[in-house]
Amino acid sequence: MTAPTGPEITLINGLILTHPGLKDAVPHGRSTICGGRLAEVNVPVESALFAGQVIDCANCLIMPGLINCHNHAAMSLLRGVADDLPLERWLNGYIFPSESKHTDPDFVHLGTMLSCLEMVLGGVTTFADGYFFMENAARAAIEVGLRAVVAQGILDLPTPDARAAGSWKERVADFLSACPQDPLISPALFCHSPYLCGPDTFQEAARLADDHDALLFSHVCETHREVEDIRARYGRTPVEHLENLGVLGPSFVAVHVIHVSDEEMDLLADSGTKVIHCPESNMKLASGVSPVRELIKRGVTVGIGTDGPASNNNLDLFEEMRSASLMAKLVTKDPEALNSRTVLRMACLDAAKALGMEDRIGSLEPGKCADVIVIDLDRPHLTPMYDVASHLIYAARASDVRDVLVNGKVVVRGGRATSVDEDRIKAAGRAKGGQIARGLGVTNFGAVFKDV
Amino acid sequence: MTAPTGPEITLINGLILTHPGLKDAVPHGRSTICGGRLAEVNVPVESALFAGQVIDCANCLIMPGLINCHNHAAMSLLRGVADDLPLERWLNGYIFPSESKHTDPDFVHLGTMLSCLEMVLGGVTTFADGYFFMENAARAAIEVGLRAVVAQGILDLPTPDARAAGSWKERVADFLSACPQDPLISPALFCHSPYLCGPDTFQEAARLADDHDALLFSHVCETHREVEDIRARYGRTPVEHLENLGVLGPSFVAVHVIHVSDEEMDLLADSGTKVIHCPESNMKLASGVSPVRELIKRGVTVGIGTDGPASNNNLDLFEEMRSASLMAKLVTKDPEALNSRTVLRMACLDAAKALGMEDRIGSLEPGKCADVIVIDLDRPHLTPMYDVASHLIYAARASDVRDVLVNGKVVVRGGRATSVDEDRIKAAGRAKGGQIARGLGVTNFGAVFKDV
Repeated sequence: MTAPTGPEITLINGLILTHPGLKDAVPHGRSTICGGRLAEVNVPVESALFAGQVIDCANCLIMPGLINCHNHAAMSLLRGVADDLPLERWLNGYIFPSESKHTDPDFVHLGTMLSCLEMVLGGVTTFADGYFFMENAARAAIEVGLRAVVAQGILDLPTPDARAAGSWKERVADFLSACPQDPLISPALFCHSPYLCGPDTFQEAARLADDHDALLFSHVCETHREVEDIRARYGRTPVEHLENLGVLGPSFVAVHVIHVSDEEMDLLADSGTKVIHCPESNMKLASGVSPVRELIKRGVTVGIGTDGPASNNNLDLFEEMRSASLMAKLVTKDPEALNSRTVLRMACLDAAKALGMEDRIGSLEPGKCADVIVIDLDRPHLTPMYDVASHLIYAARASDVRDVLVNGKVVVRGGRATSVDEDRIKAAGRAKGGQIARGLGVTNFGAVFKDV
Repeated sequence: MTAPTGPEITLINGLILTHPGLKDAVPHGRSTICGGRLAEVNVPVESALFAGQVIDCANCLIMPGLINCHNHAAMSLLRGVADDLPLERWLNGYIFPSESKHTDPDFVHLGTMLSCLEMVLGGVTTFADGYFFMENAARAAIEVGLRAVVAQGILDLPTPDARAAGSWKERVADFLSACPQDPLISPALFCHSPYLCGPDTFQEAARLADDHDALLFSHVCETHREVEDIRARYGRTPVEHLENLGVLGPSFVAVHVIHVSDEEMDLLADSGTKVIHCPESNMKLASGVSPVRELIKRGVTVGIGTDGPASNNNLDLFEEMRSASLMAKLVTKDPEALNSRTVLRMACLDAAKALGMEDRIGSLEPGKCADVIVIDLDRPHLTPMYDVASHLIYAARASDVRDVLVNGKVVVRGGRATSVDEDRIKAAGRAKGGQIARGLGVTNFGAVFKDV
């Protein structure tokens, strides 16, 4: 894969973990990047002279970027408007009124910019997102330099970007034609849920996704109430209902998957459906616990996601991995459940598989995209170190990420984003926060900042 | 309280949260520190000229330091030697053999230094610790500049610092005479548990603690097995057993308190016994869930602790607060359980009460000790901000802490410890890690560092 012009970036020194969850970290010699791809991975250092930009990773760990498989990134602008509330009061009292008033293309662009900053500074190199006006989320991801699966939201109800009920097909057509064609972006579709999307909508969306070689996402079996609703409406559980519609399959991604029976888990496994686990959001909204270990045992590919910043309320994948492991141990009463290596794999290679991108990302191999993070190990909370996976899952922090490369481009260096003006984005976020706060009658603490 | 010489430190600008959980954050004018204490808290700024050192807190939040109510700090040197194991295999296969071989005064000093660094950089200003050779933990806390309750461990079995079974009384006497007399240090005693300390030991330790006006700690009702053991041995549950021994009371601190009945919670409440909740350790070891909401309803004072770094595996109190809230919502199936304000109070003022220090720390009031943290709010993951408590619990990170003052002394400035040489401590930690790794036959990844 080496381009004739030689490497653009050379990483040297440190430790490297090429296949998280499968292999262990080892001392690192040299890895090179050409044309956005890994040309060489951990080859011996033969010379002290290196081509292109050299990044010295002494005292650091080199590993694949983390993959956040579920987000509603633009909702960073609504983070903390209301918390500690039952789902319905939270949605109907705060989230839906705010979205109805404020969610427009600029809101989506700005909110996604803030979330992309948070994610990339914390070692996330790819995220899957579902929301409205999604061509604007794609633009934000490209500007910050993140790889993204941008899934246009579909509901039978009116939405901020499809104000007439049922007009989602026009919106999807507009999205597919407006979405930037960029190596970082994969367009997709997101049917909100079996209770907000009818059978025709699901089947039509699945056809459209198939036509465009795109993934179809949906929240599935998130709450008890959803299961009861769908059973009352269709005489089937949500998974049975989706199977009956012909929607399950390798390019269908079911998010949450909490309240499922053994038979439904078998249906998911047999169909090759992917599952995304969002432990912190599930805890915060008191939704329940996904039977992740059982799903994995059946051969289901399970990725990890944060869910949106308004129901988590952070996009920190280190913490999300830790919560996935701790939550599994608690509910199974087994301290061996979801061990550090399993969880690390779920956030890297399994996540890549869940998004159909395992040929490009999820591990560090020659020919794969250069989505690489460099973690500073020279921290009190990581000293000493006997087990790299254990430290990554149980002790490391998003703020330990020093450098981030996506598609061979350095997007974070020394803990600072290099592609965008972070101060300008934060100031814009605080200004928008002022408008939102006035509408809801809540406080805008951002007003104390000098830029507002 | 203003000393005649005028303030030594003046904080200006930003937001201030004087009573976490009770009051909201408000814009901050000026606060001053004299003789280690808060002289003025949020008074109007009358002049642009300030006495002493001036700390500009623009775009920051000023709040009381966090209090970590349970730790075995020196065990940072054993963090990650083994994880994802049942408690007994973890203890007998790794922890006890390592402690038997390596735990000496230098181990305790070095391990506690590493943990103090981690804690103070993450906004912890006071911690309660239980381990061996505890005068050395006290020395470490003083060097880094942390306030500490250092509780000498007591077991009927041989321990690293009392090698003859039953010789703990000599050790306690040595500890009490060797423990540095310092305004930062409160000596205390720690009976390991009702299953490793017999009735005589508990009663004698309680008498000694009382004589020295010191707290007595114990792990209580951490596992099902403990409850069964104690019931088999004494015909009573652990709480009933301790009540029968006359040990419960306002200066007894029960750590974990997971497997308790309504009647036992009443005993704890009626006796004024304090409880420490360690959610992440309880999850990681699959121990279970403390009924925190029920305890608080009964009037029990509940503080939050991380437990030791080998069973958590971090000392990040922001994350611990978040886990306390998320875990409570999950197990009660109620998203209103342990809301952000409740959890914040548990880590500040309630924690101070649990350690008998509410007259000195836990809130920012004139006359109280100047244990103050300054949190940088100018971060993507905290932008915008509608609710300070929500952001602190659900979105903020240890790495957002910019400055830390303990007893009026600046111990962290701009995210760097000011009292000690961080690099020297980490290098010593890596060297010690090499010895421990060789003994256990595990890898010492610290060997890749240039200093080892």
